Amino acid sequence: MFPANDLEAAFDRVTDYWSPKVVGKVNDQLLKVAKLKGELVWHAHDSEDELFYIVKGELRMEFEDSVTVLRQGAFLTVPKGVRHNPVADEECWVLLIEPASTLHTGAEVTDRTRSLEEQLS
Amino acid sequence: MFPANDLEAAFDRVTDYWSPKVVGKVNDQLLKVAKLKGELVWHAHDSEDELFYIVKGELRMEFEDSVTVLRQGAFLTVPKGVRHNPVADEECWVLLIEPASTLHTGAEVTDRTRSLEEQLS
Repeated sequence: MFPANDLEAAFDRVTDYWSPKVVGKVNDQLLKVAKLKGELVWHAHDSEDELFYIVKGELRMEFEDSVTVLRQGAFLTVPKGVRHNPVADEECWVLLIEPASTLHTGAEVTDRTRSLEEQLS
Repeated sequence: MFPANDLEAAFDRVTDYWSPKVVGKVNDQLLKVAKLKGELVWHAHDSEDELFYIVKGELRMEFEDSVTVLRQGAFLTVPKGVRHNPVADEECWVLLIEPASTLHTGAEVTDRTRSLEEQLS
């Protein structure tokens, strides 16, 4: 009736880089896991904060005026409206927390952009 | 400008069992860390889901008709309105995600109940 998930095991569902999968929900926020390698695309989410928690590896979050390096165990909230570009030199596993309304790559659309439906599959 | 936190290091602020400290925020949800030992009190949050993620140790979540054992790395959302009682036989470190409106022990008030102000201090 109240299934629990193991965070690391939840990454078994992830087969492609930059393709988040929804693994949980708390109130109106979705928990998603993703494996990252390389860089995504510069984008912003106009109305949604986005939290990154590094489960494995290291992520470099580029902002327009600064860079924040996130190591395993670190978490960071990218505030709504702030342009950012996540870059992983090596494979990195992240937990994301964001509302269902969040567009994967904001207003940018690339061949890496994943719909919510794809993230739920 | 965009400070990151280390999840384990965030527990340095916690000095008492069952006394959560706010360590982050994403949209309208607060991230809190707490060290648990023993049991809290049976309670429910009428309007708020509450997510538990086990950073260290093991937590037994008692429900009225079942029990879920959460080991390190597990996460579980307790849906709004569901009565629950968290029990830790040994010290357990948890990350909680819940809205600022969430009362620590729901409608129950005990000497362990902590206000949001205390959780922010």
